[in-house]
Amino acid sequence: MATERAVYRLPDLQKLIDPKSVAVVGASATLGSFGQRTLANLAGFHGKVFGVNPKYREIAGRECFPSLTDLPEAPDCVVLCVARTQVEESLGQAIRLGVGGAIVYASGFAETGLPERVAEQVAIVTLAQRSGIRVAGPNCVGIANMRSGAIMNFMPDCGQMVGGRSGPVAIVSQSGALGYAVLQSMTRGVGVSHYLAAGNSADVDICDFISALADDPEVRSIICLFEGVKSGKRFLDAARRATAAGKALITYKAGNGEASRKAALSHTGTMVGADSAYRAAFEDVGAVVVDDLEAVIERASFFARNGRPARGRGVGIMSTSGGAGVINADKAEKMGLLLPELSSVTRRALEAVVPDFGAVANPADLTAEVLKTSSTFAHCLDAFVTDPGFSSVVVPFVFAHEASTGHRAPVLTEVAARTDCAVAGVWMTDWLEGPGSALLDADPRVTLFRSAERCMETIRSWHDWHERRDTPLDNLSPRLSPLTAADTAREIIAVAGRSGRTLSEQDSKRILATYGIVVPREIVISSPAEAADAAAKVGFPVVVKIASADVPHKTEVHGIRLNLQSAEAVRQAAEEILKSVRQHKPDARLDGLSVQSMAPPGAELVLGLQRDAQFGPMIAVGLGGVLVEVLGDVSTALAPVSPTRARKLLASLRGYRLLTGFRNQPALDVDAAVEAICRFSEMASDLVDVMEEVDVNPLIVGREGVVAADALVVLV
Amino acid sequence: MATERAVYRLPDLQKLIDPKSVAVVGASATLGSFGQRTLANLAGFHGKVFGVNPKYREIAGRECFPSLTDLPEAPDCVVLCVARTQVEESLGQAIRLGVGGAIVYASGFAETGLPERVAEQVAIVTLAQRSGIRVAGPNCVGIANMRSGAIMNFMPDCGQMVGGRSGPVAIVSQSGALGYAVLQSMTRGVGVSHYLAAGNSADVDICDFISALADDPEVRSIICLFEGVKSGKRFLDAARRATAAGKALITYKAGNGEASRKAALSHTGTMVGADSAYRAAFEDVGAVVVDDLEAVIERASFFARNGRPARGRGVGIMSTSGGAGVINADKAEKMGLLLPELSSVTRRALEAVVPDFGAVANPADLTAEVLKTSSTFAHCLDAFVTDPGFSSVVVPFVFAHEASTGHRAPVLTEVAARTDCAVAGVWMTDWLEGPGSALLDADPRVTLFRSAERCMETIRSWHDWHERRDTPLDNLSPRLSPLTAADTAREIIAVAGRSGRTLSEQDSKRILATYGIVVPREIVISSPAEAADAAAKVGFPVVVKIASADVPHKTEVHGIRLNLQSAEAVRQAAEEILKSVRQHKPDARLDGLSVQSMAPPGAELVLGLQRDAQFGPMIAVGLGGVLVEVLGDVSTALAPVSPTRARKLLASLRGYRLLTGFRNQPALDVDAAVEAICRFSEMASDLVDVMEEVDVNPLIVGREGVVAADALVVLV
Repeated sequence: MATERAVYRLPDLQKLIDPKSVAVVGASATLGSFGQRTLANLAGFHGKVFGVNPKYREIAGRECFPSLTDLPEAPDCVVLCVARTQVEESLGQAIRLGVGGAIVYASGFAETGLPERVAEQVAIVTLAQRSGIRVAGPNCVGIANMRSGAIMNFMPDCGQMVGGRSGPVAIVSQSGALGYAVLQSMTRGVGVSHYLAAGNSADVDICDFISALADDPEVRSIICLFEGVKSGKRFLDAARRATAAGKALITYKAGNGEASRKAALSHTGTMVGADSAYRAAFEDVGAVVVDDLEAVIERASFFARNGRPARGRGVGIMSTSGGAGVINADKAEKMGLLLPELSSVTRRALEAVVPDFGAVANPADLTAEVLKTSSTFAHCLDAFVTDPGFSSVVVPFVFAHEASTGHRAPVLTEVAARTDCAVAGVWMTDWLEGPGSALLDADPRVTLFRSAERCMETIRSWHDWHERRDTPLDNLSPRLSPLTAADTAREIIAVAGRSGRTLSEQDSKRILATYGIVVPREIVISSPAEAADAAAKVGFPVVVKIASADVPHKTEVHGIRLNLQSAEAVRQAAEEILKSVRQHKPDARLDGLSVQSMAPPGAELVLGLQRDAQFGPMIAVGLGGVLVEVLGDVSTALAPVSPTRARKLLASLRGYRLLTGFRNQPALDVDAAVEAICRFSEMASDLVDVMEEVDVNPLIVGREGVVAADALVVLV
Repeated sequence: MATERAVYRLPDLQKLIDPKSVAVVGASATLGSFGQRTLANLAGFHGKVFGVNPKYREIAGRECFPSLTDLPEAPDCVVLCVARTQVEESLGQAIRLGVGGAIVYASGFAETGLPERVAEQVAIVTLAQRSGIRVAGPNCVGIANMRSGAIMNFMPDCGQMVGGRSGPVAIVSQSGALGYAVLQSMTRGVGVSHYLAAGNSADVDICDFISALADDPEVRSIICLFEGVKSGKRFLDAARRATAAGKALITYKAGNGEASRKAALSHTGTMVGADSAYRAAFEDVGAVVVDDLEAVIERASFFARNGRPARGRGVGIMSTSGGAGVINADKAEKMGLLLPELSSVTRRALEAVVPDFGAVANPADLTAEVLKTSSTFAHCLDAFVTDPGFSSVVVPFVFAHEASTGHRAPVLTEVAARTDCAVAGVWMTDWLEGPGSALLDADPRVTLFRSAERCMETIRSWHDWHERRDTPLDNLSPRLSPLTAADTAREIIAVAGRSGRTLSEQDSKRILATYGIVVPREIVISSPAEAADAAAKVGFPVVVKIASADVPHKTEVHGIRLNLQSAEAVRQAAEEILKSVRQHKPDARLDGLSVQSMAPPGAELVLGLQRDAQFGPMIAVGLGGVLVEVLGDVSTALAPVSPTRARKLLASLRGYRLLTGFRNQPALDVDAAVEAICRFSEMASDLVDVMEEVDVNPLIVGREGVVAADALVVLV
């Protein structure tokens, strides 16, 4: 962690990802070889290409040089199509020449796990770090710059597929193959700017690529395909740079399975999935999460083609069939988008051309009549995109035909070019690349979706993303808990931790109190005889619990009794609890019994702290007592959180309505809950080095204030 | 309802959907006219085609006749490309000739809502019913039989697109356009047998089409695209016929929006969405529900290509890239499929060809090495499909290229032809119709998916579907409640209903008790002074509630007190309740106070009854007290239900684990809950004519038995 380097920026990677000249070391005429495929892919490159191979004078019309040192000039970038054993030497030569970037195809390095091979990779890194040359790979399929045609990879026919086109979407991928799968959207016309595969990420990794692309003014959205990152901090830094530059970071993470879910002492621990930390991190930096590979390019294209929504969450659906309109409207509703009524101007414009059996509404059914001439269709679309109710207009295409989709597609591109309204097409037919689709796929303003659900999900996420950018920056919110809290807490831990990793409820709650989280009045007694007096002191009604760090889950041993109203009831409860605990857990060391004031009725939250290996302290918030666990109704965030973020966490719970006044129940104190979550997150952030897990269960949210009725701290 | 006719069968519709000869009335040479497009679409028809139009002697080489009566023979089917006003006359002529089927394109009938136009449509129906001619339409784009080439519709270039191919999937659609969108999968090679659009469904509707296709031995799955049906019973009859014939009915329903959700008195009423009845009906008849149009053809194709799963829910994932394997494994896990270890035989077979840096596991990463020859790839695939752990094998294709996907596709088709294991490809690249895809799309054994999630979802639904068919038939399970229950209940209702639609808790529970559902011991008293005596009689602990049909939601007026342990507590509670109700609801007519035995602790279920206009009585089952409503954790079914179905309803709830022993809690009496649900559903079925809504809230599920602690019946 100490040596963690900052992410590279565009100037650092310029010669690697946007070279003016490229040398292919190991250039070859042998069909299918890396050298041959790379040269073929570079056929359309605007810059200079040098072959390097002593066996050839010339390959496919390009001059070939015996060695790097024989080149007429130092190239910006070298592609090393050489065997593993020759990589270090070639790289050394390139460095001596002053080359700025190198791509290493050869595999068999650190990915083998063999110590000597790991050492060979370390040698490459050392060379790179000392010299300033930036290296992609090893074990890398290569990279590509679609704007210049610098297709420096060995993917089959990549240069041919790209065909000299480019666009505002960049692809960054750990796996070359997966990235290439998305890049192949170019075969149907979709515009991409870069394809950057990281391979073993010895020097340059996906974080560096993201950071560099954040500096590129022509890149509008960045796709990031990955399975995991070594350093959470560098990923967050890179992602924040992208977001700050106004570029959407579209993340797709493979490997979200729950098989690796860890067994945990705390309740929240069992509910937080393996990918929760990533999701929390994505949310933290405003990255857009996509869970299906087939949705990635559509999502990225829509973000790249559309700036800030011009108005609110209103979507206009302009269909030429009733059924298609309904289908798209259902999906919009499902995604929480709005379907505002047409404005009177739009209504009048449509009424002029839509026949009686159509529907002048949102969704509209213009009917096939309107399609008979392109001008009526354009007239209607112009009305939709200028309607003040819509930030986006969605046009479903039901079936494909030259005379219908083929004629409508150009109208979409023309209208989209003259409006600030987002224009999307939904291609509902199974003729996936039918007439008109290529024009729409390639258009710089229209986004074509092959799924109504994915279209509406994208529009929702577009609104969410911009809304998030518009809210005040989270990290500017002031700390709520005392600056001295951490020191005080560490003193408590220093003493309490002596008897074991699991702290008692009392010590756990003392730490919370240090952070300004309200806990019940409490007296710990050593025998049932003292119970009534203690209850009188804390005030009825009371709760009696067993006090023991060895009994973290009191309910399971009948070690807790709630809502006791009289001295006699308290005494009796105390005796029964002692008896039951001695029976169920005879070996437990007991601190005695705790008599606590009973919190007024309210909703039960659960707060949890988890440490993530990549991202550090993470908090979890759940709602609903035991149901939280059964239903898994939990949200997570990286700590610390601002009040805005805390409120969002709460609102994202399925049971949120329980807090806001449900079925004539009074509204509960959400503000106090938000504050407690913030304070808890500050504790998580301060003490993550010593705390393994924390559970506040329940945090009772009343009509006024909240109380942490029970807590459990497990030390590292 | 009285005149509801039974669904047609194949012999009824044979001449309509599989004619040997077709006459096109209104045949035309005018480009783009219905008559011209229909003739063009019939170009590849194996049978006879007659043009009918006095203006022509011949069109595009086909003889044309002045009128139907001039034809040399009576055709099986006539396509009426005539104006609305001529339909009745043409149909009359056809009937007189003995024609078996007619397709009516003309629109402007009942869909206009104009009384005289509705009458015109009724006239068509009357002609059809009297004569036995079967009519598709009016307002219908037509239909198509892909096997014979009888493309009797005006969809542009339909005949050309179909190109003489056919397959085992039939498409039935209310909307001609939506059905055509799915039919266009034929452009990429997918095989379809029929395309049957129903238009206004004056005579033949989608239920009839489904029923007829159920009789067709070559049809393996039936796609049904619709927005709603007029008669739930006929839909269920048709669907059951399809399922009984072993054909999967793949349903896609447009218009599931919640906007039409009705405001209801009962708690469950607010949770049951507009499409719940359809979903319950689909489940009842074993139909497969698909929520995204783009998923329909894949789902239907997979079912058509694969019979019963050869083994359990094990999926083998044979990838040539680590990342693709993980992505597909994640989706399999998400869908609840199993990923068994490779058998030792499979393992050895793979180890012979997979290099060290690959993964001989499930998911497998064969690496690109294995792709270098087709034979090693076939060797591995043969090992996978014969592994006893797998009923299906999924092969991801990451990126497309002639040398990779183009060469692997034929291997899949060859291996799939010689195994009983289902073989699916997952096309992960954005080159949607890249090399090899057409071969796989057209293959009779392989199914190609363009989404890992959709692939795994389909395989899951395939297992579910067959598992359901293997369980004993629901309708054979005997009735649990007394046969006399309905009569007794009607007597209670006759009396109780006099004072209003909403019955008191007491009357509501008497009806439940009639059906054998356990209710608490209870005494209704008229003053708090009687409370202690009543409590002693029913036995402590007790519950005291207000007794009034005017107070359906007691909690909201503090009209209920639980768990009272002493005479004094009961007396006090009774007084407080009376006071509170008088304060909150001064106008409520009170029956007194109810003193009831308190059910032992357990989980709280909610049972509800709703009447659906199409499908009749429907029950809803939820779990978790007030959270049920907040979380919407509810399942629905058509009444009555069998124990098997009732158990499935419970198990499908998110909170089901609360019943089965969660966190060291004892398991609860699920059997008793299942029995109560069945009895409740029998009541729903018996009394749907008089009951508008019923709420049992809560039904407390204890360790032994269940108790209906409160109930509310609202009469029609």
